[in-house]
Amino acid sequence: MSLDPDLEVPRGASSVRHRVLKFRAQNASECQDHLAVEEPLEIRLAGSSLSVTMRTPGEDEELVAGFLFSEGIIAGADDLDVVARYRGPDGDPDDGNVMNVILKGDARVAKERLRRNFIASSSCGLCGKATIDAIRAELPTVQSNLAISVDRLNSLAAAMHQAQSTFEKTGGLHAAGLFDADGRLLVLREDIGRHNAVDKVIGHMVLARAVPLDRNVLMVSGRVSFEIVQKALTARIPVTAAVSAPSSMAVQMALAADMTLIGFVRNGGFNIYAGAHRVTGAAELV
Amino acid sequence: MSLDPDLEVPRGASSVRHRVLKFRAQNASECQDHLAVEEPLEIRLAGSSLSVTMRTPGEDEELVAGFLFSEGIIAGADDLDVVARYRGPDGDPDDGNVMNVILKGDARVAKERLRRNFIASSSCGLCGKATIDAIRAELPTVQSNLAISVDRLNSLAAAMHQAQSTFEKTGGLHAAGLFDADGRLLVLREDIGRHNAVDKVIGHMVLARAVPLDRNVLMVSGRVSFEIVQKALTARIPVTAAVSAPSSMAVQMALAADMTLIGFVRNGGFNIYAGAHRVTGAAELV
Repeated sequence: MSLDPDLEVPRGASSVRHRVLKFRAQNASECQDHLAVEEPLEIRLAGSSLSVTMRTPGEDEELVAGFLFSEGIIAGADDLDVVARYRGPDGDPDDGNVMNVILKGDARVAKERLRRNFIASSSCGLCGKATIDAIRAELPTVQSNLAISVDRLNSLAAAMHQAQSTFEKTGGLHAAGLFDADGRLLVLREDIGRHNAVDKVIGHMVLARAVPLDRNVLMVSGRVSFEIVQKALTARIPVTAAVSAPSSMAVQMALAADMTLIGFVRNGGFNIYAGAHRVTGAAELV
Repeated sequence: MSLDPDLEVPRGASSVRHRVLKFRAQNASECQDHLAVEEPLEIRLAGSSLSVTMRTPGEDEELVAGFLFSEGIIAGADDLDVVARYRGPDGDPDDGNVMNVILKGDARVAKERLRRNFIASSSCGLCGKATIDAIRAELPTVQSNLAISVDRLNSLAAAMHQAQSTFEKTGGLHAAGLFDADGRLLVLREDIGRHNAVDKVIGHMVLARAVPLDRNVLMVSGRVSFEIVQKALTARIPVTAAVSAPSSMAVQMALAADMTLIGFVRNGGFNIYAGAHRVTGAAELV
């Protein structure tokens, strides 16, 4: 019996194999397991470090675009001049988990925006309601007459599950998917961090110059925290659905911004926590 | 049919009721659902803001102590002078989600420690391995001859599940539990954030002056990220077990620090990812 003494992660891989000892009932065996890769990504704005996040490599440009958009630093792809992987001293483009960003406008303005945004979210210590009020002041309610049927909602979880490529293998990734009003999956991304998966999905649409997303439905694989709803709000997504439970602040935010929030979308059922008016026939059924 | 137009969260509550529309097969009904509370907590060190984290209220002193310990700002309870909830201008102790901390030593030293720690974790942009090397330089391998049997490992998940009070109700909380070498549960904490649940558990032991935890086993309800293993390492916990999958960096960190890392502890089975020598009889079974 010998486990691997070390684990090398090939640059850019989203999953990696590792030898494990598997115990099931009275049986023990040695086998290869697939692990979700977790690596830091540093985003540099005009050469100086803006943030470091733990993420699963893959679609880093989308992650950067989505993060900058969610944080209010860019309003769309037109604000981006360059998004490029840092090349080390030897010019190797795969030399590191660093992405360089150059904005078209004044980087000082962007940093000031981030500073204000940071203050908005970090001066919220007093209570969740104050935070929500602050965000609401910045981002008014979502205006969208998108409607989605009960049957379509029930089909989302299956459609997303079918499209997930890595989840089954590692059991370690979160997924986020964006659907159109007809229930077609437009883009699906997976990441060790749920917020990264959502940033990648939104970033994909930012780079495709398709924001605001006021005719779309966002679906996430796990729970819905406040942060996820805040990202959906910034992108003007009217309907957010999740496989598991929302938090209290996620519901408060959705109620405040007139967003539709749906949880426990699984096994042919779901719960509506906010914005039932966008679910066709919901009012009549109860 | 009418959903609640707003959601009020009583101060300090860890779960809250909210009216939802529930769809199951062809049935729709209105019912009360329990939500896990998510609220910001601001930690102030000598009056100035140190961090804001989204957490589930409850055991905030433990969360503060565990966070400061995990971040290397305090080495134990003796470094703490005051940990007290901020009282608003009207003296109401429940006036906000703000905790004030005063250290016995020089706060400047603590802030310098945090700054160094922040640099250590944020200058890691180049790769996960560099991060692990940096942490390893600061925190040498875990020295503990703790041994745990296959049967005992299998009993942990059931013991924790039995002790969880809120999880069943909301489906929205992560849990972390600390066990002794005989498989007895010493402390269990739940939180919307997995890292907060671990900070509360470790903070509980810090306040009880029981660190280092080199005779203990940490169990978490979901996946194991790098951050969780890093917290376990700081507390010198030799064995970390999880209900779900570890990430690549969690495994790398465990291998580097000679920690035992076990995943998928469920249904009478588990996988050993690192440090099999602490699982009694594992070598003989394979």
